Order: sequence, then structure tokens, then C-alpha cells
Amino acid sequence: MTTTPLSAPTTTDSTLRAEVEHFYAWQMQLLDSRACEEWAATFTPDGVFDANGLPAPAKGREAITAGARAAGERLTAEGLVHRHWLGMLTVGEQPDRTIRARSYALVIETERDGASRLHRSTVCEDVLVRAEDGSLLVSRRKVTRDDIG
Amino acid sequence: MTTTPLSAPTTTDSTLRAEVEHFYAWQMQLLDSRACEEWAATFTPDGVFDANGLPAPAKGREAITAGARAAGERLTAEGLVHRHWLGMLTVGEQPDRTIRARSYALVIETERDGASRLHRSTVCEDVLVRAEDGSLLVSRRKVTRDDIG
Amino acid sequence: MTTTPLSAPTTTDSTLRAEVEHFYAWQMQLLDSRACEEWAATFTPDGVFDANGLPAPAKGREAITAGARAAGERLTAEGLVHRHWLGMLTVGEQPDRTIRARSYALVIETERDGASRLHRSTVCEDVLVRAEDGSLLVSRRKVTRDDIG
Repeated sequence: MTTTPLSAPTTTDSTLRAEVEHFYAWQMQLLDSRACEEWAATFTPDGVFDANGLPAPAKGREAITAGARAAGERLTAEGLVHRHWLGMLTVGEQPDRTIRARSYALVIETERDGASRLHRSTVCEDVLVRAEDGSLLVSRRKVTRDDIG
Repeated sequence: MTTTPLSAPTTTDSTLRAEVEHFYAWQMQLLDSRACEEWAATFTPDGVFDANGLPAPAKGREAITAGARAAGERLTAEGLVHRHWLGMLTVGEQPDRTIRARSYALVIETERDGASRLHRSTVCEDVLVRAEDGSLLVSRRKVTRDDIG
Repeated sequence: MTTTPLSAPTTTDSTLRAEVEHFYAWQMQLLDSRACEEWAATFTPDGVFDANGLPAPAKGREAITAGARAAGERLTAEGLVHRHWLGMLTVGEQPDRTIRARSYALVIETERDGASRLHRSTVCEDVLVRAEDGSLLVSRRKVTRDDIG
């Protein structure tokens, strides 16, 4: 079955939408540039990164940093570059003030001196919260790969 | 010839742009999740879905629902997941109050337990109108596949 | 090494973000539609298009037009269609009033009567300025292909 339950239509608040899109762009540029600690700092201190492609969720910034660093080292060893694209975002603030976001995410893979290809197609579901300074942080991320049924 | 006539530059109204992007994200999440009737309800009751890959346009919500359902059943039978990505949107309101939108649309295809690939590259041209409650609906959609000359 | 130095987080000004996204969509629709002079007119008269895949930067609208025209003629001769997708944009105005934008850019390639594929994955770094009428122009563009180390 590929039917995914969807939440009700969310706000079209253009300011929130732009803010989340910017946050995602910045966050993925950090990951793809191997700024692993800065990447982990876009999660809450107790943030959870869960994915159906992982043996277990990464919990907390230290684990999230370590996961990104290990992934980056594998790419370097294999001579590959990854770019994470998020798109088709629906987002809205909930009554409990958290922000729920659902988007599609692609991983684009390029071989040094070789070809580019679509590596993964996934769905990314986030619970976002605000830091004391008002900036966004990921409290919980769930990434579901399309190839894992 | 690949020259496509383009309309004049459109508005950069950030609110309208966010509204249309949200509408597209929501609409495609419905389609990809097999919510076929909810997908068809994002068209006007007499809405037209035309595509140069179809033998004839689908007219009205019943036909649009049936088309989505048949496509979904083929994917299930073949063990495939599709994700529709729209991007590179230009959009503007016309003097007649309709909204014209032109975007690129990709279909990303993933095999269960297999690879992801770029299935189609298309151009999507929409005439959007507002329902009585102010929400957007597609009055006419024309999808042009890049592989069909 | 794939580490890319990133500038500090940029504004989330939703109006500027929408304006730049619209500008990019319009600009790429022009290029992909072979409106080569109109494409070049989205650069300043002395605008520079630099890319690590080019032997030398194209300087000025005449050179940028010629480059687009030559690329288009190659595609026609080979029966190919290209679509340029920009995404994952971070953008912000600088103290000197220029606008710096960093985005990912893909080239999607489709064979007439054939397959679509991901042709290139790149990073696009722009310095944008405003024309006298307030519209955006590219003063300097640098495109870095992921496959060139």
C-alpha cells in the first residue's frame, strides 16, 4: 500500500512558508557542505532524527553530528557528492504552537568526474519548534524512503 | 523546435506565490497518496485536465478521479511509487481575475526495494480560479511532456 | 574535499525571497525556451557568467547571448530538451545593497521520443543588483558543477 494519511490542509501563511523554506535550504546547505555540528545545531538539543532507512533513530545533537560525519566520510571515500533537495512543502502552526511540515526530499548524487543521478526519493515529516531567539529548530524528523515498502 | 512562447513577466506578489505553491504541494500530496477524489476536488466541477501524453482530455471531476485511480492501480500492480514535483513557477492574476501559472513538473519514480529515477519532465500550464470560499481550484490544466515533440 | 564555505545565515524576508524565486523561474523559462537575448537581458550590461565547466567566463550580454544560442543549437542538433531547476535558495541583502543568493541548480535532460534524466547537479552563486526600475539583474553568476572536483 502506498496510501499515506495526510493531515488537513495547512495555512498558506506566506511568511511562515518562506521562513521554513529558508530554514530547510540553509539546513541542507550545511549538511551537504559537511558542516556537521552546525547541521546538528538546527535540531533541538534532544532532537530526534528518525528514518526508515536507519537501524535506529539518532537522538540528540551528538548522535546527529556523528551520523552526518559518518555519512560524509563514506561519500568522500567513494568520491561522491550529495545534494539534498526539499520541495512540495505543506506547513502549518498547530494549536500547541509547534509547526508541522511535510515535504518531499530528494538526494542527488554525483560522482567526481562522472555522472549525476537521483539517489533517493523520500518524504520528510518534521515537528519544528522555536528557539528562545525565535529561530526554527527541528524537534523531530521522520524520513520515509519510497523504496522501503 | 523547442521554442515555447512565454507570456509577459508576471507579478512577484509574494502572498499569491506562496498560496499557489502551497496549493500545488497539497494537490500533489493528495494525488501521490491516492486520495483520488480529494485530488479531483481541487479542480472546478467542469475542470479540464489535458496532457499531450493522453489520448483525450479528462473533463470534470468524475473523469479526473477515474484517471487518477487507474494510474494509481497501474503503479500498485507494477510496485512503483510516484512523486510529483512542481517548481520554477511563474504566476500572475489576469485582468479577468483568473490566475495563470506556468511551472515545470517532474515525476519521480521509485521501485519498491529498488532504484529511484526521473520518470518524466513536463511543463504544466494552469488556469486557476477561486471557489466561493476564496480557495484555489484548477479550471484548466495543460501538461506538456518534454519527450513528445 | 567537498567542504564549501558558507556565508552567515541570510534574511528570511519573504518578499525578497519570493521576488528572487520568481526572477529565477522567469529567467530559466527564458533560457529553456531559447529566448536567448531576453535571457541575456536578465544580466547587467557588464554581467559575468562564470562556470567551472566553461573554458572562460562569458562577459557582457552579447557573449551571454552567444553562449546560450550555441548551447541551444547543440541541443536541437542532438534532439534534446533541457530544463533548468533552481532550488534550496538562501538569499539576503548585503550592506552594499547587492543581493547575494546561493542555490542548487539541476539540468534535466530529455530525449525527443526518449527518456528523461538528471544531466547535471550544480551550485549557483549570484550577485544580484537592481535596475533603475527596481527589477533584479544578475551582476555576477558562478556555477560550480558537482562532478568537477
